[in-house]
Amino acid sequence: MRYDIAIVGSGPAGLSAAINAKIRNKNIIVFGTESLSNKLIKAPSIDNYLGFYEISGEELREKFQNHLDKMEIEITYKKINNIYAMGDYFALMSGEDMYEATAVILATGVEYGKPIKGEEEFLGKGVGYCATCDAPLYKDKKVAIIGYNKESKEEANFLNEIASKTYFIPMYKNDSLMRESNELDSSIEIINDRPVQIKGENLVNKVSFKEQEIDVDGVFVIKDSASPKSLVPGIDTEGPHIKVDINMQTSITGCFAAGDCAGKPYSYIKSAGQGQIAAINAVSYLDKLKIEQRNKK
Amino acid sequence: MRYDIAIVGSGPAGLSAAINAKIRNKNIIVFGTESLSNKLIKAPSIDNYLGFYEISGEELREKFQNHLDKMEIEITYKKINNIYAMGDYFALMSGEDMYEATAVILATGVEYGKPIKGEEEFLGKGVGYCATCDAPLYKDKKVAIIGYNKESKEEANFLNEIASKTYFIPMYKNDSLMRESNELDSSIEIINDRPVQIKGENLVNKVSFKEQEIDVDGVFVIKDSASPKSLVPGIDTEGPHIKVDINMQTSITGCFAAGDCAGKPYSYIKSAGQGQIAAINAVSYLDKLKIEQRNKK
Repeated sequence: MRYDIAIVGSGPAGLSAAINAKIRNKNIIVFGTESLSNKLIKAPSIDNYLGFYEISGEELREKFQNHLDKMEIEITYKKINNIYAMGDYFALMSGEDMYEATAVILATGVEYGKPIKGEEEFLGKGVGYCATCDAPLYKDKKVAIIGYNKESKEEANFLNEIASKTYFIPMYKNDSLMRESNELDSSIEIINDRPVQIKGENLVNKVSFKEQEIDVDGVFVIKDSASPKSLVPGIDTEGPHIKVDINMQTSITGCFAAGDCAGKPYSYIKSAGQGQIAAINAVSYLDKLKIEQRNKK
Repeated sequence: MRYDIAIVGSGPAGLSAAINAKIRNKNIIVFGTESLSNKLIKAPSIDNYLGFYEISGEELREKFQNHLDKMEIEITYKKINNIYAMGDYFALMSGEDMYEATAVILATGVEYGKPIKGEEEFLGKGVGYCATCDAPLYKDKKVAIIGYNKESKEEANFLNEIASKTYFIPMYKNDSLMRESNELDSSIEIINDRPVQIKGENLVNKVSFKEQEIDVDGVFVIKDSASPKSLVPGIDTEGPHIKVDINMQTSITGCFAAGDCAGKPYSYIKSAGQGQIAAINAVSYLDKLKIEQRNKK
């Protein structure tokens, strides 16, 4: 089955894209999380979303969820790790599952915080962003999970079944994340220290902290959003952002981006607005494609 | 008194710009109408504004008004006819009143429907968009008002006090507009026919219809929004739209645009999103200007 539009991300940009594409009768799939947006639900009070004054992030999330429910839009709770442009469609990989869509809208958000020293240098040389994808490589080896979200604990438990030794390094300040989520397997060693550098020669072999150093064969950095270039090979970026034109078109035909991943300001209604623009232009793209294909016949 | 930011238009783009500029402690003035947006209040049901499902335009208007009230933002019910870039500030003209602002955000919307044949050709040669500005020129002369909104009837009554003969040509299909608003003076002749062409030699001398032709010395076309080039002399446009970059900056430094006037799609949350982007970038512009001026001293 091939979807018309795959939307990656369930923050305001992704959801606005979803409702606009659905209104235009497109067959869509939306990849996201139950919280819709980890950033949104943490916001204590939002004043700058026109129409809502002093609304909490949690309340705004409920308004969004209600909007989705009324329009019968469901979120697929899967993480997309890679997206490949295949010519006239896109292949979206989630672990071993593959989804196909004619157009893609990226609404993946942006990670604050810089990469750790060595993280980018050793990407693909022992550093990875998807434990479930690369786990087989680390059978009976030593791995560290640098975890920015609660899903990272699931990844750690999963890796721990395969690896000989698993370290978990929690990067979130908020301790409730630790308590809320599932427990880590007791055999996983938790390191409550800030990683300073990922070291190695050809391949990763160490993670160093302020106070200590550990020997590892692999490091997984588990964040809410992957870097655009690791998600969509070949896409043009500007700093941490995906390069877009005024129609939210990226450098790859049929691939659009909206919200924080498409640039500053990082704010909700700007993201929702761009999601709408992306959806409308993705629909135009689909319509044009249909006419071209008809003319070829 | 010089405002930090003048916002021209009170639709979703203008209002979103206003709340975002106010949150950043800027001294703003917002020019608009009591209805906020004539387009919005006519919408029977809106599904594509994320957070509200099946909301009527009138209800959404109330949400917006409530947001403004809570933030103590008032709308100035004046129509801006011309905006001049004066170097380090802008002069905004409303009839004989002048307002000053360091930055401007244009959120004037866009008129559907093409100009009448001859309208652009004779602009400034008998065709005008502001009766209260140009009325003195038509003392004891014959004028026609081509009216797209209910304010056009006020303009007609005003001109009728000066002119020797006033014609009123209603361009709206919706008859309730006619009934709702003030009566036209009884001496004004109403022509219920579509104007086909504004004719003249050096200056306007006729308006022709399907069935008839009238002799006139001047024609006023009264729409909700003026064309960008007649509003802001020298601004770059693309078709009916103001040319903007991804930061909503126009071709004139310090002048931003958002919403329908900045291009398609014509939709509410896209406009609100762009209003936010415009406000945030206008605030950056003001901050940069302040630093430059401090360094000069």
